[in-house]
Amino acid sequence: MSAVSEPERMARAALSFLAEPGDPALGALLQSCPPEEILNAVGSGKEQRAALPAVGRGQHGVARAVERWRARIGQVPSAARLDAWERCGLRLVCPGETGWPTQLDLLGEARPVVLWLRGREDLRFACLRSVSVVGARAATGYGNHVATEMAATLAERGWAVISGGAYGIDSSAHRGALGAGGVTVAVLAGGLSYGYPKGHHELFAAIADEGLLVSEWPPDRAPTRPGFLVRNRVIAALSGGTVVVEAALRSGALSTARHARDLCRPLMAVPGPVTSEESRGCHEIIREWGAVCVTGAEDVIEQVSPAGEGLGARRRGEVRPRDSLDQVTTAVLEAVPARTGSGPATIAIAAGVDLNTALQCLGALAAAGFVERSVRGWRLRKNA
Amino acid sequence: MSAVSEPERMARAALSFLAEPGDPALGALLQSCPPEEILNAVGSGKEQRAALPAVGRGQHGVARAVERWRARIGQVPSAARLDAWERCGLRLVCPGETGWPTQLDLLGEARPVVLWLRGREDLRFACLRSVSVVGARAATGYGNHVATEMAATLAERGWAVISGGAYGIDSSAHRGALGAGGVTVAVLAGGLSYGYPKGHHELFAAIADEGLLVSEWPPDRAPTRPGFLVRNRVIAALSGGTVVVEAALRSGALSTARHARDLCRPLMAVPGPVTSEESRGCHEIIREWGAVCVTGAEDVIEQVSPAGEGLGARRRGEVRPRDSLDQVTTAVLEAVPARTGSGPATIAIAAGVDLNTALQCLGALAAAGFVERSVRGWRLRKNA
Repeated sequence: MSAVSEPERMARAALSFLAEPGDPALGALLQSCPPEEILNAVGSGKEQRAALPAVGRGQHGVARAVERWRARIGQVPSAARLDAWERCGLRLVCPGETGWPTQLDLLGEARPVVLWLRGREDLRFACLRSVSVVGARAATGYGNHVATEMAATLAERGWAVISGGAYGIDSSAHRGALGAGGVTVAVLAGGLSYGYPKGHHELFAAIADEGLLVSEWPPDRAPTRPGFLVRNRVIAALSGGTVVVEAALRSGALSTARHARDLCRPLMAVPGPVTSEESRGCHEIIREWGAVCVTGAEDVIEQVSPAGEGLGARRRGEVRPRDSLDQVTTAVLEAVPARTGSGPATIAIAAGVDLNTALQCLGALAAAGFVERSVRGWRLRKNA
Repeated sequence: MSAVSEPERMARAALSFLAEPGDPALGALLQSCPPEEILNAVGSGKEQRAALPAVGRGQHGVARAVERWRARIGQVPSAARLDAWERCGLRLVCPGETGWPTQLDLLGEARPVVLWLRGREDLRFACLRSVSVVGARAATGYGNHVATEMAATLAERGWAVISGGAYGIDSSAHRGALGAGGVTVAVLAGGLSYGYPKGHHELFAAIADEGLLVSEWPPDRAPTRPGFLVRNRVIAALSGGTVVVEAALRSGALSTARHARDLCRPLMAVPGPVTSEESRGCHEIIREWGAVCVTGAEDVIEQVSPAGEGLGARRRGEVRPRDSLDQVTTAVLEAVPARTGSGPATIAIAAGVDLNTALQCLGALAAAGFVERSVRGWRLRKNA
């Protein structure tokens, strides 16, 4: 079912304990080398290390990176430890696996090596229709109010709300979505078992229940200061667009905004009083970066919807981004009849995929509201 | 000295009592007919009226317009009445006269027929370096604060602040400029002797002392509701750029903004809380019209300064917009020596103009800070 072999999966897991997320040398190596080969080179003698391609800063840079990773080789967990984490409700997903959010592949060399997830939602499908709502930790009452309202309305309209799990705007966004019974995704800097900040223990538990916790870091790893900025590229890349609700001029939220801009995703900012320090970053990116000035969820939906859909959504209600599905899932969806209903085997044959893949895709399509199970089998949901 | 003959001047004055400002038929006729001819046609028989060109909506439209104006023929004041107004401190200026702000000529057919002025400032020179600061009458404390601060800083930096003399943002802008010892221009809808709103009697007196009151309407004419919107084109056209500080979605300030946009002048808006009705118009024109999001006078100066000058102004202080001077004034300025000083006759010969014109231009150039009188005659001001 998975396109990723078990050795590759294990090698990626191990590498994620050796290299910090965003390590440019590992990202570059992974573009041309299987992860098993890189892991093997880290664990072996000089000769084998020298066989790695001279990516990035050349042979010397690769050699230094390998030494850096080698120093952490004792931290690679046993298969039993990985199993134990998975039994605690953590899931490890790798690029190429069905649960992998392909949105992240646009990051190229900066693509995460693995992701750890906690929660029942399908990350890839949640993110197909999602908005990042981010901002200052030192948020004002105004900013928290706007973030909560915006996230609640987005959630009501079927949009997943992605944020960073921090105090201030992030937590208001998560809470707004949860309060509206919607899906929210917290992308943490640091491991999911570590769960920083500790004060959000209960919020994270609620998010795991109703949405997803996501991290590139090993589960028990504490966050580092640069880790927050590294993490921000994932927030920007997962979502269909990024809204900055409040940010001072040097706020970390502006790094998420920069990633959204660099990825050509819709970038939006909420204006506020010009007398408020916490709105200065928003005004700056509206004026200097061309961020769209948004005043509420309606404006945001208009920006992140496929061309023409947003305005329609205001009149017609929820609309599914069918165009955002990957090729295999689209093929399965195409094979699902509109009314009568078909069994998964029939659908698998019509779609040209194996039965397991068909079942996996049907489950995800059902979760995203495209299809439903009837007494006579799978069929399209009305208005999907 | 003036390029406008006395009969033309009198005819324009008379027409300004007959037609409402912005009357499209009169604007169109004035593009191809001398004002004396139009006035003559209004006062005479059908045959002569039929000789007017069939502009705008054709012969029928012109005939109807002439009838409309003819109904008011009794309101045309005598020369003595005009003199009396001028003795009370009102000045009448016509297109083509030295005091006429040539910025208004861009309005084409919508150019005012005449302007009435009260105050000692030279309108044309004041407007060379000016910004319109406009907004809601039902302004909030926030909006009034921002408008006052912005106008004060603009005034301190040598920018004239233009507004509409209304309650709310307009009066805050005027008061901010006055408080900083700067020049402010109030463009009223309705006559200057009528002085609407009455509650601004003292404010208008202060503006006449330190700046200028301007109107297209006969001095004792009460304002009409459509007059406010008609007046807004003059506010936009006089200034180097327009800032909307607060405006609800249907605020009249947005009509000034629309004129600024249509005239390709820099259009700016101050953001505010998205929870405030009085900021919704600002956010709308930022998002939909491309108005620049400005947070204070610094941002405004950057927008309205000639390319590259604004940023320089932050470092170097005040800079004069020499490029905005008209041809004759530029010729006179070119003829003024940098250090030694020259008499007006010498300057007139060097500039190729008559002595009266040279004196007129020198006075205006001195008022705008380009030149100064020394013991040896006129010379350039340092750093001008």
